[in-house]
Amino acid sequence: MIDFKALFKISYGLYIVCAGDKNKGNGFISNTVFQITSEPAQFAASCNKDNYTCELIEKSGVFSVSILHQDTQAELIGRLGYKSGKDFDKLESLNVKYGETGVPIVQDASIATMEFKVVKSIDMGSHMLFIGELVSSEVINGELEPMTYAFYREVRKGIAPKNAPTYIDKSKLQEDAPKEKKSIYKCAACGFIYDSNKEEIAFEDLPDDWTCPVCGSGKEDFMEI
Amino acid sequence: MIDFKALFKISYGLYIVCAGDKNKGNGFISNTVFQITSEPAQFAASCNKDNYTCELIEKSGVFSVSILHQDTQAELIGRLGYKSGKDFDKLESLNVKYGETGVPIVQDASIATMEFKVVKSIDMGSHMLFIGELVSSEVINGELEPMTYAFYREVRKGIAPKNAPTYIDKSKLQEDAPKEKKSIYKCAACGFIYDSNKEEIAFEDLPDDWTCPVCGSGKEDFMEI
Repeated sequence: MIDFKALFKISYGLYIVCAGDKNKGNGFISNTVFQITSEPAQFAASCNKDNYTCELIEKSGVFSVSILHQDTQAELIGRLGYKSGKDFDKLESLNVKYGETGVPIVQDASIATMEFKVVKSIDMGSHMLFIGELVSSEVINGELEPMTYAFYREVRKGIAPKNAPTYIDKSKLQEDAPKEKKSIYKCAACGFIYDSNKEEIAFEDLPDDWTCPVCGSGKEDFMEI
Repeated sequence: MIDFKALFKISYGLYIVCAGDKNKGNGFISNTVFQITSEPAQFAASCNKDNYTCELIEKSGVFSVSILHQDTQAELIGRLGYKSGKDFDKLESLNVKYGETGVPIVQDASIATMEFKVVKSIDMGSHMLFIGELVSSEVINGELEPMTYAFYREVRKGIAPKNAPTYIDKSKLQEDAPKEKKSIYKCAACGFIYDSNKEEIAFEDLPDDWTCPVCGSGKEDFMEI
């Protein structure tokens, strides 16, 4: 018997994972970055194969991690987490430094950053699990609180996109409840769809200060479709 | 250039990871458990090869995860996290349920539990990275706050044992500081050594309500050696 609500109790942070180089770089929002050995310092990061960054990590053999702080703007998360870098240059207009390996490292909203050389790539089906050995790391704003995934979900009312490792379809959480069709809203500014049937919270129940995870527009900019 | 302080900004929870069966089970305290794919729900857990539980996961092909709450007693963390199951039965006297696979699942101090079948074992040098497919999961105390590693370190003043994936020798954090010998204290009750040279905080600077991570004794039960 599986209760998918149990999975929400695992703690994660929120990160920007980047790959590529000065000519072509890309990044995405991840909550699955973690240390697996101390000597040498090796980390793992899970990346959906559909992410353009996944292709870039495989090609370049390097990736970077920027640890986001609690007050990271919804717009930055939206830009990096809910859109594809296949369509536009996600890193344009961001404050990006290039690491010792040449990998782009986003500085915006970051408490600390790390740079890795891939030492193993493990095929996990929908995702690749990349193991990286630490090349360099830096604290940028050590006094700020890291954004935890729990804070992002509970306080910021953020939602996981479909290709996240921790995405859970709302229908799985209510196996015994009668199925009822709920409201679907669309952001007038950017077209983002909020489907109450697939989220834990109905659109109507989102707090008044909730903002579009893609473009940062307010609730009032959404219309029912 | 590596600044090891950056690594502390990654967010983790705190878990009991168990393996084995009714005849011989064991568990340890882990902060590296995380989901890597959604369909199917697959998780990874990093385990030091010196841990007796590592051997049991390899033998039994199953492991369980109990997600600890914020107020977990130091004694429980000490029992499972700072002692070896090679020497005594760690699970004795604990409230243990046995899962669908027969794996022991600790219920004490747990918000939710999960049970996994190992689908991949990856040798990472000092640690094994086990990938498990979710077999069952249960919420036990959904209203309680999960213990985060940050909370354990900052509020509870917990310290990582040497074989943890995230252990960092204090000397690495002060590469430029002059080396000075600091106090070493021993717990009179259980023999646990607190070596100020290897921790972030000198023994004298630990808060008055700090307790021995192994047996829960107060600061006053420690003597300088």
